[in-house]
Amino acid sequence: MTDLIQPVILCGGAGTRLWPESRGDRAKQFLPLTGAQSLFQQTLARTPADAGFAAPIILCGAAHVATVGEQIGALQASLLVEPMARNTAAAIALAVARADADTLLLVMPSDHVIADGAAFHAAIAKGARLAQQDWIVTFGITPDAPETGFGYIASGAALGQDGFAVDRFIEKPPLADAQAMLAAGGYSWNGGIFLFRAGRMRDAMLTHCRAIFEAADRAVAAAIIDGDALYADAVHFAEAPSDSIDYAVMEKDDRVAVVPAAMGWSDLGSWQAVHTLAAQDAAGNAVTGDAFLHDSHNCLVRTGGKRVSLVGMDNVAVIVDGDDILVMPLNRSQDVRVAAKARE
Amino acid sequence: MTDLIQPVILCGGAGTRLWPESRGDRAKQFLPLTGAQSLFQQTLARTPADAGFAAPIILCGAAHVATVGEQIGALQASLLVEPMARNTAAAIALAVARADADTLLLVMPSDHVIADGAAFHAAIAKGARLAQQDWIVTFGITPDAPETGFGYIASGAALGQDGFAVDRFIEKPPLADAQAMLAAGGYSWNGGIFLFRAGRMRDAMLTHCRAIFEAADRAVAAAIIDGDALYADAVHFAEAPSDSIDYAVMEKDDRVAVVPAAMGWSDLGSWQAVHTLAAQDAAGNAVTGDAFLHDSHNCLVRTGGKRVSLVGMDNVAVIVDGDDILVMPLNRSQDVRVAAKARE
Repeated sequence: MTDLIQPVILCGGAGTRLWPESRGDRAKQFLPLTGAQSLFQQTLARTPADAGFAAPIILCGAAHVATVGEQIGALQASLLVEPMARNTAAAIALAVARADADTLLLVMPSDHVIADGAAFHAAIAKGARLAQQDWIVTFGITPDAPETGFGYIASGAALGQDGFAVDRFIEKPPLADAQAMLAAGGYSWNGGIFLFRAGRMRDAMLTHCRAIFEAADRAVAAAIIDGDALYADAVHFAEAPSDSIDYAVMEKDDRVAVVPAAMGWSDLGSWQAVHTLAAQDAAGNAVTGDAFLHDSHNCLVRTGGKRVSLVGMDNVAVIVDGDDILVMPLNRSQDVRVAAKARE
Repeated sequence: MTDLIQPVILCGGAGTRLWPESRGDRAKQFLPLTGAQSLFQQTLARTPADAGFAAPIILCGAAHVATVGEQIGALQASLLVEPMARNTAAAIALAVARADADTLLLVMPSDHVIADGAAFHAAIAKGARLAQQDWIVTFGITPDAPETGFGYIASGAALGQDGFAVDRFIEKPPLADAQAMLAAGGYSWNGGIFLFRAGRMRDAMLTHCRAIFEAADRAVAAAIIDGDALYADAVHFAEAPSDSIDYAVMEKDDRVAVVPAAMGWSDLGSWQAVHTLAAQDAAGNAVTGDAFLHDSHNCLVRTGGKRVSLVGMDNVAVIVDGDDILVMPLNRSQDVRVAAKARE
């Protein structure tokens, strides 16, 4: 059994919720949204070697290999390159297929914010103890609002001081259900961070989603290795059904634990969320770049190298990227997809 | 006495009320604000040769000679180039100094909109009859709102069917006064369009503002002529006091007439005015360029060659010019100067 926890960072995602900055080959995780570092770089920094973590494994698509290389810099890391997107179960299966059975894999999205690193590490310590007992561990984000955009986890029996057996997973709920869960307590958001012994996940996959694991396993066996990067074989990987790890494994397995954690988590899933987390001036404005704001409040302005002037505007986002300029009320942030779809 | 009316088009203005499109060496009159043609080109088209007008005289600054040349195209015209800005009295004095005494000069700003050309020509016909009787004629815009940004003209005794003697000029009034004048009737806005016999204006200037006329007269005498352009002498012209024709002559002379005219006039003095006059879609949006609007209403979007996307925005202007992007509520249009001052 290894002493180190092996970070596995999922970089395969794309998405348009932060369009126009996030699009095509520039995924959200590679953008500097909350400071100088990208969310991916912040994720890397969250599991440093001096805190007992192994050099990270980065799961990404071929289109992002160059960006990953740039953003890693001198950090020691290895890449598992997905020849095509096959959702999280197949991606994680690549890492599982490569790992020793007793290695603890800590799977993390690369596009979330975790403000409280100490709380995160404390939760990992708890999760590691459960994972050693062959629990598949998910970390539950303590809800602070009746969000309808996240999946929820209902906690069951306590597992000592470390967490709870998962009673059930609840898909993105209607508002009334979200409000009821928030009021009742005992529920947490599913943040998509997982910790498990590799052999335990291998067995679970062979039980619950054998086709996915076997395709990934063959794709690894036939992979091309280029320095620190392993390029999974495309023909084999293409045979993996596309499914999320939640559907493929977590919701089906009977030994899944949740470790609740209040760690300043955000999925930064909208420009409104970016505004909330960004440094704001006294008027509530969060500005990146050359912006002039007069009598304007609670705005998010990202100038993309242009010069943006706001006069008398409140509660809007103005996002400039290349030749694209997006203007919308922050509370309409979820509708950015309409513009992204029309434009891309 | 000539049969032709001589248009004199004032192009010396600058201003920042339509910033960022209007700025520095790109004055409002040269912008295509209400269609494919600039306001200057629309002004030229308003006094065509086939309607009894002489080839226009264009008064402009040296910085605008090239732009004027481009926008004139093949039209026959002559230029009077002001070596520096000395306000409207000195500019008009240049044209007066060059003209035969009995020529009727029709002085027009180049940055206004006149939607009803027939009404404009009918008013000019009336004004010409009065000008032949040595009235200095100003055209009064029939007010349709208690505007506080314009000067007002109080009509006195009727001059037959053609107009009225001017009783007095009223500077930009407080709102209560503007409302009272609108309710009372007999008042019109001073639109800055003038018609007079050149010799009559020469005499008036020699009486009311001799220093201005004499400086302009000397600047013309010492001018450099280059093709169709006369470059007024800078040393002499610099001696002309800077004053508006309204202050320098109109308010002092005792034989000034007003010809009221309802001719769809607008000074297009704000982005809100541009929105009002522009072609709007069913949602009240007026768009120039590549704009995508979703659930947005009553917006003015000018993309400046970029791609603008609006989601859920109402009653705003988004003006892009080069690297500048202005966003403001249309009813805050007068505050654009704050941004222009900060940026220029």
